[in-house]
Amino acid sequence: MTPTLDFWFEFASSYSYPAAMRIAPLASARSVNVRWRPFLLGPIFKAQGWDNSPFNLYPAKGRYMWRDLQRICAALSLPFVQPAVFPQNALLAARVAMVGLAQDWGEDFCRAVYTVEFGQGRNIGEPQCIAAVLQSIGQAAEAVMQQAQSDAIKTALRAQTEEARRLGIFGAPSFVTADGELFWGNDRLEAALEWAKR
Amino acid sequence: MTPTLDFWFEFASSYSYPAAMRIAPLASARSVNVRWRPFLLGPIFKAQGWDNSPFNLYPAKGRYMWRDLQRICAALSLPFVQPAVFPQNALLAARVAMVGLAQDWGEDFCRAVYTVEFGQGRNIGEPQCIAAVLQSIGQAAEAVMQQAQSDAIKTALRAQTEEARRLGIFGAPSFVTADGELFWGNDRLEAALEWAKR
Repeated sequence: MTPTLDFWFEFASSYSYPAAMRIAPLASARSVNVRWRPFLLGPIFKAQGWDNSPFNLYPAKGRYMWRDLQRICAALSLPFVQPAVFPQNALLAARVAMVGLAQDWGEDFCRAVYTVEFGQGRNIGEPQCIAAVLQSIGQAAEAVMQQAQSDAIKTALRAQTEEARRLGIFGAPSFVTADGELFWGNDRLEAALEWAKR
Repeated sequence: MTPTLDFWFEFASSYSYPAAMRIAPLASARSVNVRWRPFLLGPIFKAQGWDNSPFNLYPAKGRYMWRDLQRICAALSLPFVQPAVFPQNALLAARVAMVGLAQDWGEDFCRAVYTVEFGQGRNIGEPQCIAAVLQSIGQAAEAVMQQAQSDAIKTALRAQTEEARRLGIFGAPSFVTADGELFWGNDRLEAALEWAKR
């Protein structure tokens, strides 16, 4: 049986960017099947008493995060531009990802969203930005975005966020193995893949 | 010139345990000279509005941390016992470390403190625990502990904690290179050593 790993990510999360760009080849090399699971951190942060990203609430931590992310991207040869807006409204992107992941273009969409957000510093909270990303991967932007705003997709994303909270997820990216082992952070990706193979 | 790396640690910090146990051989293999710099996280956390460890303030994060630390210790073949008291009062241990690091037994003392705290689950906030650690490394416990409570040592530890804050340090372990590059977390130790060598 092929081992699987659930990849829980949030488009507003900065460290989810390198994780999203790294996970496919690393998983493939280890013959691990990855399920991409978008969710929303906002409700989980609110339950912890935060109404903003901890990187904005704690400035020393925020300054460090941007420098650390810049170093990580440089080491991976990933483009990096710190977005003027942070965190960004990732609701529409997450809903579109739910549509795409039920078809065959979801992972390409996710990587393209992260690239425009943290590789080019653009604002994915703007619908025209998401439309441009969809067009760049050959999807019909208007039809997809209409589907993304359907009740079925809204409900599915809410349920997925609730599942993340039930699993003990408190940040992104997170990785959960079939036996329920939780790993948090881009820097735990390799350990999570190894655990999935045990 | 031998590259140097400052290792900023706090005896109450759980992830400082594997970092303290790993750093000497990793640095030696890369010919990097490490300066051990104990400091207190309490004043820095207070300035962020925290009166407790974030691992206690945010239970999901705390549950994850203990499981993650257990996995990390298992992978390194380090003993691990979750202490009943967390975080522990690390003031006396930090002052004794200041004494020892100005002599030649400081690093051995630090490793021994971490081992009893997170490898055996004992409470380093109890003076008799620190006395036992000192005896285990062949030091005269009473004389050292008296010196550790001198004004000179108290002032030096306060100054070192203030220096940590000025450097932008917000958690432990942290590593700072000679050119001021900050790395946070046991999982950044290798990256910090590589940066120090550049």
